[in-house]
Amino acid sequence: MTVTIKLGQLAEFLGATLRGDPEKDITGLATLQEAGPAQLSFLANPQYRKYLASSQAAALLLKPADAEGFAGDALLVPDPYAAYARVSHLFDPKPVAVAGIHPTAVIAADAFVDPAANVGAFAVIESGAHIAAGTTVGAHCFIGARSVIGEGGWLAPRVTLYHDVRIGKRVVIQSGAVLGGEGFGFANVKGTWQKIAQVGGVLIGDDVEIGVNTAVDRGALADTILGNGVKLDNQIQIAHNVQVGDHTAMAACVGISGSTKIGKHCMLAGGVGLVGHIEVCDNVFITGMTMVTHSITEPGAYSSGTAMQPAAEWRKSAARLRQLDDIARRLRQLEKQVGEVTPDGNASSDG
Amino acid sequence: MTVTIKLGQLAEFLGATLRGDPEKDITGLATLQEAGPAQLSFLANPQYRKYLASSQAAALLLKPADAEGFAGDALLVPDPYAAYARVSHLFDPKPVAVAGIHPTAVIAADAFVDPAANVGAFAVIESGAHIAAGTTVGAHCFIGARSVIGEGGWLAPRVTLYHDVRIGKRVVIQSGAVLGGEGFGFANVKGTWQKIAQVGGVLIGDDVEIGVNTAVDRGALADTILGNGVKLDNQIQIAHNVQVGDHTAMAACVGISGSTKIGKHCMLAGGVGLVGHIEVCDNVFITGMTMVTHSITEPGAYSSGTAMQPAAEWRKSAARLRQLDDIARRLRQLEKQVGEVTPDGNASSDG
Amino acid sequence: MTVTIKLGQLAEFLGATLRGDPEKDITGLATLQEAGPAQLSFLANPQYRKYLASSQAAALLLKPADAEGFAGDALLVPDPYAAYARVSHLFDPKPVAVAGIHPTAVIAADAFVDPAANVGAFAVIESGAHIAAGTTVGAHCFIGARSVIGEGGWLAPRVTLYHDVRIGKRVVIQSGAVLGGEGFGFANVKGTWQKIAQVGGVLIGDDVEIGVNTAVDRGALADTILGNGVKLDNQIQIAHNVQVGDHTAMAACVGISGSTKIGKHCMLAGGVGLVGHIEVCDNVFITGMTMVTHSITEPGAYSSGTAMQPAAEWRKSAARLRQLDDIARRLRQLEKQVGEVTPDGNASSDG
Repeated sequence: MTVTIKLGQLAEFLGATLRGDPEKDITGLATLQEAGPAQLSFLANPQYRKYLASSQAAALLLKPADAEGFAGDALLVPDPYAAYARVSHLFDPKPVAVAGIHPTAVIAADAFVDPAANVGAFAVIESGAHIAAGTTVGAHCFIGARSVIGEGGWLAPRVTLYHDVRIGKRVVIQSGAVLGGEGFGFANVKGTWQKIAQVGGVLIGDDVEIGVNTAVDRGALADTILGNGVKLDNQIQIAHNVQVGDHTAMAACVGISGSTKIGKHCMLAGGVGLVGHIEVCDNVFITGMTMVTHSITEPGAYSSGTAMQPAAEWRKSAARLRQLDDIARRLRQLEKQVGEVTPDGNASSDG
Repeated sequence: MTVTIKLGQLAEFLGATLRGDPEKDITGLATLQEAGPAQLSFLANPQYRKYLASSQAAALLLKPADAEGFAGDALLVPDPYAAYARVSHLFDPKPVAVAGIHPTAVIAADAFVDPAANVGAFAVIESGAHIAAGTTVGAHCFIGARSVIGEGGWLAPRVTLYHDVRIGKRVVIQSGAVLGGEGFGFANVKGTWQKIAQVGGVLIGDDVEIGVNTAVDRGALADTILGNGVKLDNQIQIAHNVQVGDHTAMAACVGISGSTKIGKHCMLAGGVGLVGHIEVCDNVFITGMTMVTHSITEPGAYSSGTAMQPAAEWRKSAARLRQLDDIARRLRQLEKQVGEVTPDGNASSDG
Repeated sequence: MTVTIKLGQLAEFLGATLRGDPEKDITGLATLQEAGPAQLSFLANPQYRKYLASSQAAALLLKPADAEGFAGDALLVPDPYAAYARVSHLFDPKPVAVAGIHPTAVIAADAFVDPAANVGAFAVIESGAHIAAGTTVGAHCFIGARSVIGEGGWLAPRVTLYHDVRIGKRVVIQSGAVLGGEGFGFANVKGTWQKIAQVGGVLIGDDVEIGVNTAVDRGALADTILGNGVKLDNQIQIAHNVQVGDHTAMAACVGISGSTKIGKHCMLAGGVGLVGHIEVCDNVFITGMTMVTHSITEPGAYSSGTAMQPAAEWRKSAARLRQLDDIARRLRQLEKQVGEVTPDGNASSDG
């Protein structure tokens, strides 16, 4: 599948300053090193400036300050990466769904599907659900009772919404994601676990993206909430009654335990885990695989874990770590002894 | 969707002592702080006792000892949390399936579906499978050959059972869960991996719950086994030939490697990982994201990992940790030197 | 379901030396301890040699050197585990699909399905897709536009391929796996995340296996690539533009961040996480739950994390670890002091 767009059209679309031939045909996007003579590329990371001179790209998205380093055609823009993000959609080979309902879909008599929505093969839409205009419901999707999907949404094939899941506008959900599953709510009664019905729902803001096989559980009592502009990568677990603030992004394999609140504009790297019932303030960055066991009240970067070592050295470190309390006590003891010998000793006060 | 139940009916249902108006209408459940004048709430955690006086709830589930702190209507019960668990189901908005088979379902001629079971749209039930009375098989479920689901089960939409998966009574399985997948069995023959057929099955006890997108692999030779009352949260991985004892609960994102046996009444917090071929005894609690590399033979709580720090401090800790073996050796050396200087020194014997 | 094969037939199939009755009926496989008088077993791990004498198995796969320890019938082979892998498929109860297309499947007019392929109930195959001979596409599978599956593939029920996913020969994909999902590509523009279309595809070699609920994202620009013979277990996350070398195996719950390259013949144990944009050379083994934050250029084994302790001891270790930089500084100070007192002191040079 090939799209062809003229360089001049791209300049106009972006409001960019064109340097070069407006009639040149652009058929796709590629990196500086891989782009061929009909492909557009970009320079966003200064580390890649070294590839400018040798790039075979048809044209580049460049900051004006970088334009000197490239002799070929260019589109000059203030933020090449943002410009790349915008033009990328023009070359997206993703099939576009046409409005209409596939004849195999099973739709409850009292569900509403806007005539300008698309519903794929074998989709199931239950009683009282509402699908707004411009929304795509992929094949094999299940939309539970009374669930609502706002305008311009895109659900990949095989997305499951339980009942009472309310989703804002322009929300993208990848395959295998499950919204509204029954959270892990059990009361321990004499050693056995009694299930607690999860009577809350899920509330998703506008412009949210939810990745492949990610799970967002319904609330136990009130709703589980994702704010506007939240981006969740693949394989994420959001437990019941979690609240995620606007424009917070989480990389893959993050797990958030029940009732934890995360602020706005946070970034959680891959594999991070948060215990339940804590709060993370706005503008926090948590590095990969960190275990967050208490609330974070100051913006900034946080980490846990240990650095990778060759396994033989790691075994020594791990063994020594178990002796660390003993090591600290012995150091304190030694400081006292040496302090007695050398009375000007300046031992630390803790130990 | 609103259910209305009179307070007196709830008292009767629970065997609770009613304090207040038996005719008062209750329409839902909420927390102490959020409950409105038609909602029932409860006090289970003593930390929330401070909210008693100001709660707007229609009535509370309370221990008799806490009843003095709340002037409004109350249902006095020995265990308010357990009582809440029981009444929660009365207010559950989850749609109830009516017995019957959706006309789009594809059911093998020699499969058995009890007339008192429900089978949803586009479900596929293969040869020799058996669905007992009172069981719901959601839309888009796949029930493999010879698989059996006991009475009163509930499978959310889009649950996959491979062949020869046997499930007990009253088992709940959330969307995206896969039971009976082919485990990771390969023989390395001269550097390439040769697949080993996984000829065992899966055996699930009564009253088990399996979360969203959780995987329970079939056995390589014998069955993979989950005991009665086991509760698995979302995104869990249970490898081939794992055995989990009765009433053990696992929070989300746990991974259990092949042939590991876990005892009864254990609790594994989120993100815990266990290597294969080990045994964990009964009544073990493992804290979040712990890496379990050997068997556990004593009941109790176990942990691994490091505490979160601001990233700049963490980088120092992580660098120092790689020096820890050196630090320990130097401390031992210093102890010897100081012992020579101060002969009453009391150095530790290890190092 | 029972298969019966004569011991002599198995010897012939394996090219094994038969010791015993060629007419003996074998109906299945089991471990040394569990095998009954009609089951075949094997001795691969020397640890289990102690079970030889008491095994009730009908016959054993044995190295000639181990044959003396077992008085019963045996098939003598150079590699009993590899032989077990081969015969396991003869006893696999997995239903075999017959060529043909289920009448409920929805197949685009311009998709190609080989007459010797099988397509299950409710499968959807989109425009321009190509399903080669001998391939099984399970029920509820979705094969996106222009995606290609080579000869002899097996897709379990409910596998999703987005558009432009190209798969080699004899590839096995378990339920819930999603190939070609839109990777986590966003440009941060003034605090909000702008989506970047993921215009690359996915390229999968021959003889690859992909586990339950595993996600392999499509490339942002170029393709995400899995080499020949790669084996991925369940619940794995492969981000956009990752490249995995031939015959590399990953256990469950591994997460690989974007654009990272992994060599050939590597093994990643369960729960390992890799940051993006790094390279791991050939023949690397990474132990369970290790966090890989930089490239690995030397073959060998690598680890991170801490050893499990009883929780009370762990809390002390974790607290001390946060003091480790202080401990190291104090040790260095003490070494200087003691060096002054005992001028023959032999303090290390770092600290």
